[in-house]
Amino acid sequence: MASTDTLTAGLQEQPLSPELLRKMDAYWRAANYLSVGQIYLKDNPMLDRPLTIEDTKPRLLGHWGTTPGLNFLYVHLNRIIREREQKLMYIIGPGHGGPGLTANTYLEGSYTELYPNIERDRDGIKRLFRQFSWPYGVPSHVAPETPGSIHEGGELGYSLVHAFGAAYDNPDLVVACIVGDGESETGPLATSWHSNKFLNPITDGAVLPILHLNGYKIANPTVLARIPESELESLLRGYGYKPYFITGHEPAIMHQQMAALMDVVFDEIKAIQQHAREKNDATRPAWPMIVMRTPKGWTGPKFVDGKPVEGTWRAHQVPLADVRDTPEHLKQLEDWMRSYKPEELFDAQGTFKAEYADIAPKGELRMGMTPHANGGLLLQPLRLPDFCDYEVKFPSNGAVDVEATKVLGDYLRDVVQSNLAHSNFRVFGPDETASNRLQDIYQVSGKRWIAETEAVDENLTPTGRVMEVLSEHMCQGWLEGYLLTGRHGFFSCYEAFIHIIDSMFNQHAKWLKVTRNIPWRKPIASLNYLLSSHVWRQDHNGFSHQDPGFIDHVASKKSDIVRIYLPPDANTLLSVADHCLRSRNYVNLIIAGKQPAPVWINMDDAIRHCTVGAGIWHWASNDGGGEPDVVMACAGDVPTLETLAAVSILRQRIPELKIRVVNVVDLMCLQPDTEHPHGLPDEDFDRMFTKDKPCIFAYHGYPRLVHTLTYRRTNHDNIHVRGYKEEGTTTTPFDMCVLNDLDRFRLVLDVVLRTPSLTHLREETTQWFYSKRQDHKLYVSQYGEDMPEVRDWRWSGKAHTSASLDTGGDNA
Amino acid sequence: MASTDTLTAGLQEQPLSPELLRKMDAYWRAANYLSVGQIYLKDNPMLDRPLTIEDTKPRLLGHWGTTPGLNFLYVHLNRIIREREQKLMYIIGPGHGGPGLTANTYLEGSYTELYPNIERDRDGIKRLFRQFSWPYGVPSHVAPETPGSIHEGGELGYSLVHAFGAAYDNPDLVVACIVGDGESETGPLATSWHSNKFLNPITDGAVLPILHLNGYKIANPTVLARIPESELESLLRGYGYKPYFITGHEPAIMHQQMAALMDVVFDEIKAIQQHAREKNDATRPAWPMIVMRTPKGWTGPKFVDGKPVEGTWRAHQVPLADVRDTPEHLKQLEDWMRSYKPEELFDAQGTFKAEYADIAPKGELRMGMTPHANGGLLLQPLRLPDFCDYEVKFPSNGAVDVEATKVLGDYLRDVVQSNLAHSNFRVFGPDETASNRLQDIYQVSGKRWIAETEAVDENLTPTGRVMEVLSEHMCQGWLEGYLLTGRHGFFSCYEAFIHIIDSMFNQHAKWLKVTRNIPWRKPIASLNYLLSSHVWRQDHNGFSHQDPGFIDHVASKKSDIVRIYLPPDANTLLSVADHCLRSRNYVNLIIAGKQPAPVWINMDDAIRHCTVGAGIWHWASNDGGGEPDVVMACAGDVPTLETLAAVSILRQRIPELKIRVVNVVDLMCLQPDTEHPHGLPDEDFDRMFTKDKPCIFAYHGYPRLVHTLTYRRTNHDNIHVRGYKEEGTTTTPFDMCVLNDLDRFRLVLDVVLRTPSLTHLREETTQWFYSKRQDHKLYVSQYGEDMPEVRDWRWSGKAHTSASLDTGGDNA
Repeated sequence: MASTDTLTAGLQEQPLSPELLRKMDAYWRAANYLSVGQIYLKDNPMLDRPLTIEDTKPRLLGHWGTTPGLNFLYVHLNRIIREREQKLMYIIGPGHGGPGLTANTYLEGSYTELYPNIERDRDGIKRLFRQFSWPYGVPSHVAPETPGSIHEGGELGYSLVHAFGAAYDNPDLVVACIVGDGESETGPLATSWHSNKFLNPITDGAVLPILHLNGYKIANPTVLARIPESELESLLRGYGYKPYFITGHEPAIMHQQMAALMDVVFDEIKAIQQHAREKNDATRPAWPMIVMRTPKGWTGPKFVDGKPVEGTWRAHQVPLADVRDTPEHLKQLEDWMRSYKPEELFDAQGTFKAEYADIAPKGELRMGMTPHANGGLLLQPLRLPDFCDYEVKFPSNGAVDVEATKVLGDYLRDVVQSNLAHSNFRVFGPDETASNRLQDIYQVSGKRWIAETEAVDENLTPTGRVMEVLSEHMCQGWLEGYLLTGRHGFFSCYEAFIHIIDSMFNQHAKWLKVTRNIPWRKPIASLNYLLSSHVWRQDHNGFSHQDPGFIDHVASKKSDIVRIYLPPDANTLLSVADHCLRSRNYVNLIIAGKQPAPVWINMDDAIRHCTVGAGIWHWASNDGGGEPDVVMACAGDVPTLETLAAVSILRQRIPELKIRVVNVVDLMCLQPDTEHPHGLPDEDFDRMFTKDKPCIFAYHGYPRLVHTLTYRRTNHDNIHVRGYKEEGTTTTPFDMCVLNDLDRFRLVLDVVLRTPSLTHLREETTQWFYSKRQDHKLYVSQYGEDMPEVRDWRWSGKAHTSASLDTGGDNA
Repeated sequence: MASTDTLTAGLQEQPLSPELLRKMDAYWRAANYLSVGQIYLKDNPMLDRPLTIEDTKPRLLGHWGTTPGLNFLYVHLNRIIREREQKLMYIIGPGHGGPGLTANTYLEGSYTELYPNIERDRDGIKRLFRQFSWPYGVPSHVAPETPGSIHEGGELGYSLVHAFGAAYDNPDLVVACIVGDGESETGPLATSWHSNKFLNPITDGAVLPILHLNGYKIANPTVLARIPESELESLLRGYGYKPYFITGHEPAIMHQQMAALMDVVFDEIKAIQQHAREKNDATRPAWPMIVMRTPKGWTGPKFVDGKPVEGTWRAHQVPLADVRDTPEHLKQLEDWMRSYKPEELFDAQGTFKAEYADIAPKGELRMGMTPHANGGLLLQPLRLPDFCDYEVKFPSNGAVDVEATKVLGDYLRDVVQSNLAHSNFRVFGPDETASNRLQDIYQVSGKRWIAETEAVDENLTPTGRVMEVLSEHMCQGWLEGYLLTGRHGFFSCYEAFIHIIDSMFNQHAKWLKVTRNIPWRKPIASLNYLLSSHVWRQDHNGFSHQDPGFIDHVASKKSDIVRIYLPPDANTLLSVADHCLRSRNYVNLIIAGKQPAPVWINMDDAIRHCTVGAGIWHWASNDGGGEPDVVMACAGDVPTLETLAAVSILRQRIPELKIRVVNVVDLMCLQPDTEHPHGLPDEDFDRMFTKDKPCIFAYHGYPRLVHTLTYRRTNHDNIHVRGYKEEGTTTTPFDMCVLNDLDRFRLVLDVVLRTPSLTHLREETTQWFYSKRQDHKLYVSQYGEDMPEVRDWRWSGKAHTSASLDTGGDNA
């Protein structure tokens, strides 16, 4: 051990009795034995006879390198749990050490309780070995299938944010987070150390980061293992931690040192919490952490074919890759496995001996059985105010302008307030909560801040329910950790920059999909995104801030996981938000504007509209409820506005034209019901969009998605989609529509060009269109803002029928 | 100034003569004046008369907060350039300070040289003001339009990686990188400090990070501004830098201190480089850096409406937002602008006075005119070996298996070698270069590593051309910086995890699009991605590593920027790679497998095939060159293999069936030529895919993209696409195809079900299909690998015609 805070206690004390030392070492050897067995064997699990090729798997897949270190930490954390009755959960950054976690949860009994076919005997171990990295078995990484896990060991970099997300509002919990030195090179991990500036020692739990320096990635040394230890210590202190270093490889010495060190850090955590809670002092402490330097592939083969393996990158995956072709490798594997002395560890039936099994924690204190890692067990529904109380009233459709997300902010404020006592709801945003108009939340709870404050600050508090940091990665990662441990959240972000967490979204959606087939995993609250400051309103941010592609990214995932909502106004936004906050196991994507915009429908209609997902707006149509000449469909707030403005123009210019206006809130309803549970049945879709009439569809995002979703619909050849086509700059709101041919003038021309009965108007309308475009362009160039005709436009069409809304499906 | 390395020199010396101090301060005031003017004014630029509402813009868009600090640094960097003839370029992390960069490049003359309509007089300044954040003008951020910039000021977090990318292999260049304390919270920025472990002081240039602590983001304080300065210093030293702190707000004092500090850090940089170069010592030094703490909105309004503005987040954007409605605000604006004393700075014509203009650098030493920031000026074509020399020969189509990316590695090795002398080509990868089978490169150049080494290490060297770090963000950012400064690169990555840089790709693609309309921006080398370890071969990594969606993400961008290639074998991969390395101003996406797989066509055919982008494989077809009964199309290596295996089965089972095999290499050729320059003309497409025959299309990624791209094609209703449908786990290669219905048995069934002449075989084939599926499933479950029938399958079909390939377009 070396550190300027040298842990002299650890060097001098022998905290483990010889008896406990012997048992803990045996436990560790058993975990290592079971880990190796998973990687290599499909038979002869107890080495009852000499190993043969037939005992080994045809495909050797797995990661040994990190595993013995993880196993070592697990047994030491177990001691802490036993001796202190400490609630602990683990997060394994180097999650490819899957065999280790499977082995440990097996040894402690969790695995057999959740998977009864993996018994605690020879047959069970054989199945345990065989299923690993085996088709239809379990993945080689820590995965949803792994008891006690909330963190997939695939994409690297999110362990520490997940750990903090789990610890927030769990004051009695300590989350032990093993951080790999490989993943430490990723951006998300490098910034997530700063999560300590958002953790309140009074009301939150603790995170114990354990940086595991085993020195190598797949093919290279790691950066943090190859800087001077003084520099590494400076870095970690700069992040605000108090690091303790432990280095070694001799098991007996390492057991005593690690036990002593664990006592020190858990004492410190307790002391920090006691002080904070007794003195009501939320000042940020320097939380302890551990830097453990052990050889990669510790206790594994030291040399293979004359090359060093233990302690090098060659131990990363399968150190003896050729056991099926090379007799010496097979022999070396057998020697390696026998070096753990399985005959001392398991009895004649292959059952882990009671004297060792007994040192594991019991019941829910086992890390494999903590309910925190199966958040659905702990999930309490949110207390939600009646969203109808926030309805924006209006004298007539479209007569009142509001900032939709501001209205949502009123509602969210009361959601926050209603659940303050339960500490189970947080709002996340990358410095954009107020920019996205959700600032009314601050009336009841501020922004969490455990760093320094100054007199000029506003709304910063150690207890705030709003998490603001300029890192989409941290927002997403904290929220995932928070949800997976049974709480609720809401993430608002600029639309363009949510792509920063595309890959994190992928991993979370994949996790959710897999958990649907794991009976013991209980449903958790959905991950709710509000994207605002969207593509159409980047007046001064311009082209770099214009990207609606997250919709497409989300839509690529399984239909039983994802939901996409484009509420056209404030009332529909409220209805959608309420629905999302009640839902489970989904990713809900909501896109809504923050600029003043008309409210189109009242709350009764909004609820029916959102329930079905799409509807005919009779109040804006003039097809008399019969067959129209043209369907004007829209999805998204700006496209809805432009569509209704185009309808106004068309009614004036071509009064005899029968127009039907269809608005789509729930994008997934465009798909057939065979493809997505929200899909409209074909007959309802045909009734709404007709079987053969031209349909001009004004859409918020890239047009291709609407084509894809409607590909199998009867009328799809007649659906003509306008949307964002990657044109933009710093310009006026209406000019953005013009640049992308989504503007009202273009929609009018589209209708005329595509409606067979209007061929006689084509030339005239085309001329009109170009003259309008020119008027617009001249005005904008000269005055720098949109022409009054556009800016001041307001819906004044009269509804043709008394029924204001026809939601097709349920009214059909 | 405070630091444990307190810069006592700075406190004591007065390096600036009174005369130079006066001029530098005047220069700074001029830049600030022009910055404010851009945000607010469209007329009366020289304040020749009292300000009126009519002089101000109708929409006030821009960011003041960071701007005066940027302007301050610019004038001090100018002094360094002048006094030392130092080649300097700037990277502005807080890029929303666009007005400052526009102002400075105007003052130094760069702006007028590049944009002659912005003259150096009153009219020019009026246009300069008016165009800012004005429709069809210039964006409010640092952007491609800004002289001297390679870094868009939109999405935050990439300044430092861009700076390092620019500095690599530019030994005489210093890149001054202003890092915002807001962006410092992002993940990519937090890890990119570690770029110093990859910078060779002998052969690379230097990066001077200047962390600008102005304390606030849009709405919140920043983390780094609210930790104790000792902690911040510890953090930066932990990252390996030697930080100098400078804090203040009194201009005269700050000018002297900053000048002294700049002298110190540039002396240090020079000393470090001299030592390294004279002693040939590449040991990593502690590079100096600056932490500058100045008020946000420095020199702007101190209070507005009684609330503090200067030094708070309220100065972030437009501090006086209501100048058009509030006469006091208008008055305050005028006072603010007059506080810079424009009458002292500009002459009667509005021309910046010569005595001040003279202190700017001249010619290409001006930061606005450095050729490094307009990389196309410096770009030298790569020396490329003849890729045909790497052809994989075979006795018959499909008879030889190779790892395609391994063959590419041979070629890339020689590309590296051929350009070693010019130091203008690097290969980037997140610890995956060898995993992706490109390791032969190490025969000629290793992996760059300026951290500690150990005896066991292999292929690490301070001069390596391979950049490996476990951060896709750093790989992408370095490569962007490297390309934008006129060099070449190649980025290989696991397919699933390239999503980590989705958003960075967006920004780069948008940058490229905009530069196409800026005549003075010369074309740069394309950004080339090789994605391997793809969705179909994640045998042990499983579901979390399976995501082909980056193709879709790329396809959303403008057709004049993006290219997507799916070479089916090693020879086509070579042809594609050569093409990509020669191309300019594109993003090229190549997806290729690393597992042993058949080589289908020889190099002559490969070249013709890749040139057109798609072709009929006559050697695999039996339509005799006439109209087929069915088209079997494929794109991607695994889909091609399954398609040909299905063709084999069909030929055996239904010899009379006329099958045409079409392979698609260049995905964009599926689009009409009106949509994409690579698109096939409709007549060629129809000739290849027929107008009315069923087409079973086996595709690498999500099927919807093929539907989208072929949406307007005559035969699109008959195109039935199989691809990845988000099903997967840890399993065998063939089982992945089965899970996603891309397997040969399913393709056979698809053909039978969709070919009208085969209705009589439907029942029989369906039964056969289910029996094959069951055989497969049983075998895999029992043996853990694919059944021999599948594993050992090899193409043995005879070509029907002598012509082996018909590339449609050019042969038609």
